[in-house]
Amino acid sequence: MKILHTIPKEDGFYMPGEFEPHSGCIMIWPERTDSWQNGAYAARRAFVKIARVISRSEKLTMLVSHKQYETARAMLPPTVRLVECTTDDAWARDVAPTFVRNGEGLVRGIDWGFNAWGGLHDGLYFPWDNDNHAARKICDLLDTDTYDCRDFILEGGSIHSDGQGTLLTTEACLLSKGRNPHMSREEIGERLCQCLGAEKVLWLPRGIYNDETNEHVDNICAFTAPGEVVLAWTDDQSDPQYPLSRACLDVLEQATDARGRRLKVRLLPIPQTPVCMTQAECEGLDLWDGEPTRTPGERLAASYVNFYIANGAVLVPQFGDPMDETALRILGECFPEREIAGIPARDILIGGGNIHCITQQIIR
Amino acid sequence: MKILHTIPKEDGFYMPGEFEPHSGCIMIWPERTDSWQNGAYAARRAFVKIARVISRSEKLTMLVSHKQYETARAMLPPTVRLVECTTDDAWARDVAPTFVRNGEGLVRGIDWGFNAWGGLHDGLYFPWDNDNHAARKICDLLDTDTYDCRDFILEGGSIHSDGQGTLLTTEACLLSKGRNPHMSREEIGERLCQCLGAEKVLWLPRGIYNDETNEHVDNICAFTAPGEVVLAWTDDQSDPQYPLSRACLDVLEQATDARGRRLKVRLLPIPQTPVCMTQAECEGLDLWDGEPTRTPGERLAASYVNFYIANGAVLVPQFGDPMDETALRILGECFPEREIAGIPARDILIGGGNIHCITQQIIR
Repeated sequence: MKILHTIPKEDGFYMPGEFEPHSGCIMIWPERTDSWQNGAYAARRAFVKIARVISRSEKLTMLVSHKQYETARAMLPPTVRLVECTTDDAWARDVAPTFVRNGEGLVRGIDWGFNAWGGLHDGLYFPWDNDNHAARKICDLLDTDTYDCRDFILEGGSIHSDGQGTLLTTEACLLSKGRNPHMSREEIGERLCQCLGAEKVLWLPRGIYNDETNEHVDNICAFTAPGEVVLAWTDDQSDPQYPLSRACLDVLEQATDARGRRLKVRLLPIPQTPVCMTQAECEGLDLWDGEPTRTPGERLAASYVNFYIANGAVLVPQFGDPMDETALRILGECFPEREIAGIPARDILIGGGNIHCITQQIIR
Repeated sequence: MKILHTIPKEDGFYMPGEFEPHSGCIMIWPERTDSWQNGAYAARRAFVKIARVISRSEKLTMLVSHKQYETARAMLPPTVRLVECTTDDAWARDVAPTFVRNGEGLVRGIDWGFNAWGGLHDGLYFPWDNDNHAARKICDLLDTDTYDCRDFILEGGSIHSDGQGTLLTTEACLLSKGRNPHMSREEIGERLCQCLGAEKVLWLPRGIYNDETNEHVDNICAFTAPGEVVLAWTDDQSDPQYPLSRACLDVLEQATDARGRRLKVRLLPIPQTPVCMTQAECEGLDLWDGEPTRTPGERLAASYVNFYIANGAVLVPQFGDPMDETALRILGECFPEREIAGIPARDILIGGGNIHCITQQIIR
């Protein structure tokens, strides 16, 4: 593995869309007892289900701590490759490299700086050094060269690419004080384009209500094809999500992408009933630094947009809500060639993210 | 990775000779301060030199602890793949899988039981559970299926194969009380043939004097081609090594291999001056369980037979002894197509083995 200090765009590298072919996928085994309730047993089962579906159409590599290797090996199907790697938690989307490729199909990884979604300003745990070192180790494992972009704080969940020069992100996250406060909106946008080989950034103002990542884009809006997005939506104007989604829709309706196209926007409902923490779930979580990590009644950032597009399937969070079916139907229209796999996702959501947050595609 | 409980020989799998083509090589970064003197810094440099030479002709994967990843990455050339894996020490030969293949070129690993060269009887450290679990994890990393042979205690350094049905081992090691004391010589030989797809075991009585592995074969005798071996030798009848090598030569001169051939035996001298621990070296080692791991003046099991055959080179231990050149010349005759690379090896030998002990070929 070479560590590169050049600029991906200048080297001819760009980030493909997630809907383009993958050579594989990275996940990380859940273990942290202040993130995953009751010793992470329910979360493990949910992760195994996701790994099983993904590994039917692309090679899944699960990273695992030394201590959990035997247990994970026994629970995972033999098609999954299990490799030891020390991390601070299980958010592969945010700590694994972002993979870019060039016209000849050569793949490289980008190693962004990671500071647990806000560092000492409003980060979610401390320390985060193992997570920050994970991307480089994953590139080493995969034998791909890696761009050193550790000076720029970014999580994979805060960006989407259409693979044709357009990026999606949110101002709430990328302009947050805990990321790169010394950089202006324009400088950040330029850095994204340089690193991801893009021409244009579509800045959505906000994300999902109460999303502790400072409102990652991957929970509110995603490309389903070049020129087409889905947006998390509610018609209920009294819901705190309404103004956030409304502000994003206003931007999307006015926007053109890097190729000058207007976007086709499909609205994906949020669950009809807010998904909130129960007393019992809270009691199954360890404290962090003397404080509860969740409180009873707390509204979680439940969204069907946090799906993962595998080569042969789209894995969609399900919450036991009447809107579950609607989400599956709409995404079925977006991805007519792929299996639409609904995955019960409450046990992942409690950890603070969803299916997209715990997966990272390795592009081909 | 599938875990298999069938018998390799019955599945059509066998162990090729080390001189046959490899797809790669495994090593483990040295760290243990009761094995490697003065914080392992000198050992690291020796390992890096070896990794550099091997990686010129085959893909080298170095396993490393979480804590040493950054340091190892900085010291190793970018051609080396560095992957986290928790082990108890750095003896890849003995803890990595033995790879077998079938006629179609499918490769599988054998996961032997490992008990630190003798378990609670006369093992060299405790615990050894990380080492015992390493082979399976390496198979997982390489995405090869693995035979579960953990019920049988064996180290890779205690066997050699000619790839044509003949195995070499020593009675001193394989019949030791700390390995498989419930099995007879015949049962052990049969198990070796079943696991390694062989027909015949050549049992050498002894190994190298004062070899703490209970006299592994890879320090005294090795195949250089089917029907051809090198044997560690001294003409000095007062040397404690003489009767050991003499007893082995008597066996080899009488033996025929699985194909009925007489063996061509080349004698490889041991160093003219015994290699012994200095006071300063002993003072650079941590105690183990309250005892020194080495004592000043202790004779180390120095042997030129502990070479590694890479695709493009043979890496030969060098001790700063007049016999260094002789060993290189003789091995040059054995391997006329390969570079003969002499490697200063004292800093590895102090750890208790040599170049062959810290490498394990992945066959093609």
